Amino acid sequence: MDKKRPQILITNDDGHAAKGLRKLVSLMRTLGDVVLISTDEVMSAKSHSCSIHKKLYVRLVHEEEGFKEYRCNGTPVDCVKLGYQKLMEHTDLVVSGINHGMNAATTVVYSGTIGAVIEACMNGLDAIGFSLFSLNPDADFDHLDTAILEITKRVLKDGLPKGVCLNVNFPKRAEEPMKGIKVCRQAACRWVEYFKEQYDENGEQFYDLEGTFESDDITPDTDLWALQNNYASLVPTCFDWTAHRCIEPMKNYELINVKP
Amino acid sequence: MDKKRPQILITNDDGHAAKGLRKLVSLMRTLGDVVLISTDEVMSAKSHSCSIHKKLYVRLVHEEEGFKEYRCNGTPVDCVKLGYQKLMEHTDLVVSGINHGMNAATTVVYSGTIGAVIEACMNGLDAIGFSLFSLNPDADFDHLDTAILEITKRVLKDGLPKGVCLNVNFPKRAEEPMKGIKVCRQAACRWVEYFKEQYDENGEQFYDLEGTFESDDITPDTDLWALQNNYASLVPTCFDWTAHRCIEPMKNYELINVKP
Repeated sequence: MDKKRPQILITNDDGHAAKGLRKLVSLMRTLGDVVLISTDEVMSAKSHSCSIHKKLYVRLVHEEEGFKEYRCNGTPVDCVKLGYQKLMEHTDLVVSGINHGMNAATTVVYSGTIGAVIEACMNGLDAIGFSLFSLNPDADFDHLDTAILEITKRVLKDGLPKGVCLNVNFPKRAEEPMKGIKVCRQAACRWVEYFKEQYDENGEQFYDLEGTFESDDITPDTDLWALQNNYASLVPTCFDWTAHRCIEPMKNYELINVKP
Repeated sequence: MDKKRPQILITNDDGHAAKGLRKLVSLMRTLGDVVLISTDEVMSAKSHSCSIHKKLYVRLVHEEEGFKEYRCNGTPVDCVKLGYQKLMEHTDLVVSGINHGMNAATTVVYSGTIGAVIEACMNGLDAIGFSLFSLNPDADFDHLDTAILEITKRVLKDGLPKGVCLNVNFPKRAEEPMKGIKVCRQAACRWVEYFKEQYDENGEQFYDLEGTFESDDITPDTDLWALQNNYASLVPTCFDWTAHRCIEPMKNYELINVKP
């Protein structure tokens, strides 16, 4: 690896064959040396899972000038841990995606793509997650090139604030070009599941999780509004989940007598 | 079920046989009717994983006055989804734990126990996670009775602010009684892993994830400080991961030209 070029770790949660991942690799290779560590299996909705009490196997599957590709039997979070600690001498940036499917609003909590980004951030590394608002495995990613390259170049140049990573979502290609980037907050929307009751070949009932995305929080400062209006959304994201505004009002919990 | 009593959903991530779970059931049954939905397998470090593209089986394994116990092949997050949507007519409160092992500081991001709590919170339910700072499967939980009951009674009576759940951690039993409850913020500490390189029976190398917990953020307003000083920590926790303080400073990202 060329020490003068940025050393970029890439992972994702859609598995090693995903079109979005390959697109991200080709973009990042124009900016630096790339180490790709992807998972054997699709890891959607694996969130921040990591492998404990499990044998973690990693293998180098491809190597050429400026590019190494590893594969492992873990999760996207494992890929980050292994990458910056064992497989790379130095890591300047962690990039995850491009996810097939958006990771805006509260869907971040389920996302393996964002799990990897937050893991990197917790370990002091600059990190960006990129996702496209389309689940199509053959989705078109070409309208994202300029935006992804320019955002990444800026992060490589300026760095990110301590404890903060970027969650970037893109609208799928529309007739009009994408309008721009909106820096916004995570909307408080949610999946509302309905469970389809079905029966297996033995007549035993099981549930199949499906859902609809519901929202009553799509103001222009939210990521969902941006996506619905053909903007990319960029949410500065943190791993401090404290509801700071509630600390003072809840101090009266300290009056509870805890003595047995 | 008695409609006049609070209807309490319980889950955890240590599996159905965990001592901490059974303790929580016995405490909650003094406060309301309990529906316990636990997982077939131990779900530690499964974070906010949920089951998609998977047949989710649920079975009723025990029923008596004021208590139903279900078991499923999913994750703690699945247990919450199934419970309030399919298995309970009404849910007043979701309680998760008592976890064997602390879920303070940044360990929340890995925790299946807290995943369940956040899932409930995202769906508008009051929710509390309880964890003990001891990994001992036979840990002593009896010094927590008063604190757990009083915190839960207060939440049942007053409710929690919208979008906020409670992450409560307890110190393990010390010679002195627990000093009280501290309402605090999540410390910015982290696990620092080291991967033990080992070899399996075929001579193939694998990694075994181990780690040490490192911290340079143990001021008296943090959960870690509370636990280290024999207090329970209570962190009001949210699912809005936006780094709000960074939205304005990052507005210059909106100047990036995204045109292909």
